[in-house]
Amino acid sequence: MNSTEFLAEVAWNEQGLAPAIAQDVHSGQVLMMAWMSPESLRMTAEEGFAVYWSRSRQSLWKKGEQSGNQQVVHEIQIDCDGDTILIIVEQIGGIACHTGREHCFYRSLKNDNWEIQTPVLKDPAEIYGE
Amino acid sequence: MNSTEFLAEVAWNEQGLAPAIAQDVHSGQVLMMAWMSPESLRMTAEEGFAVYWSRSRQSLWKKGEQSGNQQVVHEIQIDCDGDTILIIVEQIGGIACHTGREHCFYRSLKNDNWEIQTPVLKDPAEIYGE
Repeated sequence: MNSTEFLAEVAWNEQGLAPAIAQDVHSGQVLMMAWMSPESLRMTAEEGFAVYWSRSRQSLWKKGEQSGNQQVVHEIQIDCDGDTILIIVEQIGGIACHTGREHCFYRSLKNDNWEIQTPVLKDPAEIYGE
Repeated sequence: MNSTEFLAEVAWNEQGLAPAIAQDVHSGQVLMMAWMSPESLRMTAEEGFAVYWSRSRQSLWKKGEQSGNQQVVHEIQIDCDGDTILIIVEQIGGIACHTGREHCFYRSLKNDNWEIQTPVLKDPAEIYGE
């Protein structure tokens, strides 16, 4: 049986959530930022796959459940204030973003415009079987 | 004169803020996560040094103003939802964390405990001249 005392040491925000940054263990690329609830962090730690909290759906979000693009957790870190989580992951399928890109930070500020810098690797319709 | 239309494309949260992740341009290390207001993002883009919004002080926070540990901005990225910012920076002085460490994510989950994994490089009292 696992102890879950580490969950109480997280400074959850007023919604009971904490931002969780996912970083690729191989490339170091920051893949995405999502939110975790205590339950999703517990599941992430126990099961070894990233589980977030979907604020739009108000439910646990097992990343990759539908797409197969799961995130295998190598390490779970927390910051000095205890209010932000960083998970180091192996991104199955090489696609973290729902747009079909490697990661979500595909727009970069150039001459005061957000310019797309990262190609779509797979059609989202194909990923989600729509 | 710069256009600031890109600020309106950010999906600021109900407090008018967005989380901003700072990543080291050389090592790829995720250094910290803080918050930006439209004004702090504008200043970050214009001045080339990271400026955050301090939620505790409710004021602009020019990172490194006191410590000298400024962050020189190489790139400003935004995610698919437009609600999270990633800045790629050069960390002056090699210390991003107020605890005197290279970065803020110095605790890692090991056997259900948050264990410190990263050494203090400089006494905070020395950094902040207390």
